[in-house]
Amino acid sequence: MARATARRRVVRLNGPGGTARPDSLAAEEPLEIRLGGEPLTVTMRTPGHDFDLVAGFLVGEGLVDGTEALAALRYCAGTDADGANTYNVVDATLRDPAATPLSAHRNLLTTSACGLCGRDTVDAVRTHVRWPVAADPLRVAPEVLYALPERLRAAQRTFDSTGGLHAAGLFDASGNLLCVREDVGRHNAVDKVIGWALREGRLPLTGHLLLVSGRASFELTQKAALAGLPLLAAVSAPSSLAADLAEELGLTLVGFLRGQSANVYTRADRVTLAGSAPTAPEAAHHDRHDGHDQ
Amino acid sequence: MARATARRRVVRLNGPGGTARPDSLAAEEPLEIRLGGEPLTVTMRTPGHDFDLVAGFLVGEGLVDGTEALAALRYCAGTDADGANTYNVVDATLRDPAATPLSAHRNLLTTSACGLCGRDTVDAVRTHVRWPVAADPLRVAPEVLYALPERLRAAQRTFDSTGGLHAAGLFDASGNLLCVREDVGRHNAVDKVIGWALREGRLPLTGHLLLVSGRASFELTQKAALAGLPLLAAVSAPSSLAADLAEELGLTLVGFLRGQSANVYTRADRVTLAGSAPTAPEAAHHDRHDGHDQ
Repeated sequence: MARATARRRVVRLNGPGGTARPDSLAAEEPLEIRLGGEPLTVTMRTPGHDFDLVAGFLVGEGLVDGTEALAALRYCAGTDADGANTYNVVDATLRDPAATPLSAHRNLLTTSACGLCGRDTVDAVRTHVRWPVAADPLRVAPEVLYALPERLRAAQRTFDSTGGLHAAGLFDASGNLLCVREDVGRHNAVDKVIGWALREGRLPLTGHLLLVSGRASFELTQKAALAGLPLLAAVSAPSSLAADLAEELGLTLVGFLRGQSANVYTRADRVTLAGSAPTAPEAAHHDRHDGHDQ
Repeated sequence: MARATARRRVVRLNGPGGTARPDSLAAEEPLEIRLGGEPLTVTMRTPGHDFDLVAGFLVGEGLVDGTEALAALRYCAGTDADGANTYNVVDATLRDPAATPLSAHRNLLTTSACGLCGRDTVDAVRTHVRWPVAADPLRVAPEVLYALPERLRAAQRTFDSTGGLHAAGLFDASGNLLCVREDVGRHNAVDKVIGWALREGRLPLTGHLLLVSGRASFELTQKAALAGLPLLAAVSAPSSLAADLAEELGLTLVGFLRGQSANVYTRADRVTLAGSAPTAPEAAHHDRHDGHDQ
């Protein structure tokens, strides 16, 4: 079951020449998620922590908001050509299926907005957020934020051997790492962390911080909000709709978190600055980025 | 319609302090893709080149394989709360809808594998690839590969202002850049490039190279193969299933393409090395990566 990496021969090019050698790749396999026996979605993920992944996915879709809502998780007997179980199909059973009819979620949360502009999409998510994220009293010093990426990186195991995985880390307000998960898909890494928290009975994640190794998209912001997180930080850039959603929900969105600097896109009042409060932009600061990301 | 970036005030943290200033973010908006009026999928994308995106998506799903297969692309009248067209719904009409029944693709290509192991997923894609990719006589020198990332980077426009976009670039066998597209979603960037090629009447992309700015997943390899590309290169790591699919189809997969080095995971015979052919791995080369990616 520990198929997080796969071995393969590669040709390593170096200048004009090349040599063959063995290499480790991050494993990618399909996972079908079923709800009460009915197929819900298929995601391409790195095997491992599959129950966390499924639990977190259901939280992010607004279908589950606590351990009591989830009755069971089990592997179905999906088999390969040799008849062996692939462990690539997980069925989730809700405690009260009637309370969350699958039909209402058939197209999943983000795809059900009727007008299909960013505004409608933000509104569709807002109606599903059950926690008072905007009222979360979290306060965090910049130095706590600056310490997060190195702690996440140090805890990544598969990345070191493959260089090919996204990571998500859950921290308490003091910056202590509680859970780290890796995956070829960044949304899966976040689902695995939030699903871990759900199964540990920790939802909502009031007063906690979530860090992702890449960019902050609308989807990741949605997942953070539906888990009750007051702060989402990313090593790279956020999208416009991620910032729009964070603003609407009162979630603190941090981007370009690198070294001793970062951008705070929304609810910057949660970051305790040395000296005075942030100055107004009227002072005509030049508009450019200090950090770029490939 | 040129909403590739959005302006927003941010607080820039630097050490213990922070200052407010304006900033540019990569725009993200939902796009609903319809086929013959029926909703097919919704993707979160950066607005711009939407017709390319839809055309390329249809190629990647095996629904369209040439300009003649696509009868029309048009924006539907999706409206926001003020009644303005959001330009976020595109309807595609096929020349021969009966030849590609939507029902057969309802769950889209990668999600329709029955046994749901990587092997089945690879097989499902293989049956949809219409071009003899394995027989493509492309040969490319390492120095041509090494030059690609800088050419792609130089052609990226939105990244420079937001630091937040994935890019995909199409090159000829000599390394000349033919088309570059950017998007918050890496699969969208690839769809836009392939859709451009389709609409230009250039499919199949025999003898061409595709470079992506991030990792190479199974999905991106599938898209390359369905467009007839013999070579996919990535700045970062490929996944195990991307390499499995590339091997099965006879597509050359290059990863960690940085500076004067790269890894060739499959069909390395297309890369013309100086001196002798690649040596066998029996020489006990140490197993490690020379490049990692955040």
